[in-house]
Amino acid sequence: MNRANDPSRKSWVFVPNNSDFSIQNLPFGIFSEGLGGKRVGVAIGNQILDLSAVEKLGLLKNSGFHQSDFAAATLNQMMGKGKSLLCELRNKISDLLLEGSDIANKADIILIDQRNASMHLPIKIGDYTDFYSSEQHAYNVGCMFRDPNNALLPNWKHIPVGYHGRASSVINSGTPVHRPKGQQKPTDNDPPVFGPCKLLDFELEMGFITLEGKPLGDSISTAEANEYIFGMCLFNDWSARDIQKWEYIPLGPFLAKNFASSMSPWIVTLDALEPFRVPGPVQDPKVLPYLDYDGDHHIDINLQVAIQPEGSTESIVCNSNYKHMYWNMQQQLAHHTVNGCDIHAGDLLASGTISGPEEGQFGSMLEISWKGTKPFAMQDGSERKFIQDLDTVIMRGHAEKDGIRVGFGEVSTKILPTK
Amino acid sequence: MNRANDPSRKSWVFVPNNSDFSIQNLPFGIFSEGLGGKRVGVAIGNQILDLSAVEKLGLLKNSGFHQSDFAAATLNQMMGKGKSLLCELRNKISDLLLEGSDIANKADIILIDQRNASMHLPIKIGDYTDFYSSEQHAYNVGCMFRDPNNALLPNWKHIPVGYHGRASSVINSGTPVHRPKGQQKPTDNDPPVFGPCKLLDFELEMGFITLEGKPLGDSISTAEANEYIFGMCLFNDWSARDIQKWEYIPLGPFLAKNFASSMSPWIVTLDALEPFRVPGPVQDPKVLPYLDYDGDHHIDINLQVAIQPEGSTESIVCNSNYKHMYWNMQQQLAHHTVNGCDIHAGDLLASGTISGPEEGQFGSMLEISWKGTKPFAMQDGSERKFIQDLDTVIMRGHAEKDGIRVGFGEVSTKILPTK
Repeated sequence: MNRANDPSRKSWVFVPNNSDFSIQNLPFGIFSEGLGGKRVGVAIGNQILDLSAVEKLGLLKNSGFHQSDFAAATLNQMMGKGKSLLCELRNKISDLLLEGSDIANKADIILIDQRNASMHLPIKIGDYTDFYSSEQHAYNVGCMFRDPNNALLPNWKHIPVGYHGRASSVINSGTPVHRPKGQQKPTDNDPPVFGPCKLLDFELEMGFITLEGKPLGDSISTAEANEYIFGMCLFNDWSARDIQKWEYIPLGPFLAKNFASSMSPWIVTLDALEPFRVPGPVQDPKVLPYLDYDGDHHIDINLQVAIQPEGSTESIVCNSNYKHMYWNMQQQLAHHTVNGCDIHAGDLLASGTISGPEEGQFGSMLEISWKGTKPFAMQDGSERKFIQDLDTVIMRGHAEKDGIRVGFGEVSTKILPTK
Repeated sequence: MNRANDPSRKSWVFVPNNSDFSIQNLPFGIFSEGLGGKRVGVAIGNQILDLSAVEKLGLLKNSGFHQSDFAAATLNQMMGKGKSLLCELRNKISDLLLEGSDIANKADIILIDQRNASMHLPIKIGDYTDFYSSEQHAYNVGCMFRDPNNALLPNWKHIPVGYHGRASSVINSGTPVHRPKGQQKPTDNDPPVFGPCKLLDFELEMGFITLEGKPLGDSISTAEANEYIFGMCLFNDWSARDIQKWEYIPLGPFLAKNFASSMSPWIVTLDALEPFRVPGPVQDPKVLPYLDYDGDHHIDINLQVAIQPEGSTESIVCNSNYKHMYWNMQQQLAHHTVNGCDIHAGDLLASGTISGPEEGQFGSMLEISWKGTKPFAMQDGSERKFIQDLDTVIMRGHAEKDGIRVGFGEVSTKILPTK
């Protein structure tokens, strides 16, 4: 076990009850403060540990990391050092933050209040891949658009179905999004029309960030996969349902998705999530050997989506959990590389919409409102079938076990009218 | 007109008859020589003009470009300077190479024989998008897999259908590719199997490279599109037909494509291709206003595909032309950004397979062998339905008019057995 995961550890930094950022978490992000440049920080309680300042104090000697790794606008250079150095870096940071550490007297140099910092997109994303790995979500979509008796497509339980998304339009939490325009086909017999999307939707997802993989032509097995995964984030894969419906046959979603995808600013390491592993579902039919795996590779992470209308209170529209995935990250990565496709430090692989088996656990408005047929009753008396202008969609996530909480903070995005 | 396009210009550098690299071309690429580093070069005849060496001689003063733009491993930094500076750079280079220029006496410092140079992938590709814009190709696929009376899908003449591809596995000409492995479903009733692809195919395409676009949320019109396009290359979008068939519903091609895509090393500027513009097809039904355009935006570029079996002579399997596109680059870029999706310097947008209307003009083995039912008779007496191990697939392209030739060289890729 990484010593940073030791549940008995407590920090000299104050960590409020229910904080996502316990000393057992220590997620990495990119922040700036005032006129200062972007740099690497670690969240602890309501504070950010400034790794650039820590390094300048000589507290990370012999770690394999240098000032240029931390005085950086993205985590990519740091991630380039590979899994074992990153793992030990988190352990060293835990030691520094541990009750009794004598660097507590340097708090004014190395800690920044999160309220005084701006968070930035933490990763320069190379390639972004989106999967479709929640059975309930695939089943719901199949029921709505095909047939409840035949809801899953024939390949779904054999392949972690995925497709390539747009890396350039992945944005940080807090960046607003204009409602996209595009072609839609409201009726079968009339020609398509052009205009603002009328069926704008979120998709509750989680993403994982890879480390440098193997050369083009080589594959990563399910047993090796964890070594190539740095950490995870919350991910809102914005979707324009009307644009999607008209464009996606036969080559998949394109403009319905690539106008924006929002990610949370803190990357929670896979190491920090190890204590929350749970078994996955029995996979029947049995998967092909390259997708088989040993051990528990699913993770129990509570997920929540809220919609906050302009000037009003938020309504919780979904409570889901990452454990509801049919395909896990190890299988997704093994599948992605089985043909020799190469992955690199900073690639983003997202889960697809994470819907739980019960109503109230569905991860998109498409499912929550059942294609607009069941409007959701909001706290403020209004209704939602899809997302309206000036709505802010907030996703939150945390794992919790034996009193230890490891959370993601939130990804929050406001929708602005069409530009 | 750019003066570099003046058909009366001749160079002091010897340019053989039928060379792709006339003084009216001047494509940009990344080369290295011996133990030297990668740097920017311009092809002229059988030589490469070393822009780093030219700059060191002080011959590009006031051009807006500096040594770091040319002593670079990719063209991206240079492309970051924008269209008008790049256009004028090509004009200056043309002046330097013009008969009578007094830098001819520096030939030993600034010219490298192409036989002594290694060419590299010229672009750090940000995002890669593949379109599906040749009507004959879409029609052929529709005939084979659906119905000749209903071959084009309902959206095809309304939308330049496209999807996101994998940027990391775009490789340079000359890099061999191992036959990919993956899931296939040989029969409807048996479970899927895993193994080497049996139906490996090329796709004859052209790609274009973008310059820095507008911010996320803004769109590029068809009238503006040329200002955001740097140049073009030959592109072989390798495809595993059996993997594709089983995986692509509902989210499009994934592992069938992302094991490798090969591009030619020289980027021919859009400026150099202007003299070869031709009208496009009448688009009926009429397209929506955002896809409408004025002027001639198609380009007459002869394209050829050859297969060279190991130790044998090559066979020409396809003669096509880029003018056979239904949707042009301006329409593709306007569509791609109409929802606010952002593009950047170094994005790659490819055409999709370019098939002409006649047999002999089809741009993939799928079409040439009509799904394997019509084997192609090779020069050496063998037959091809799809690509075999140790075959080298070579694509060539050039425009020609009034005795002026502007060509792309070739993209050549050898297929190795499964790793």
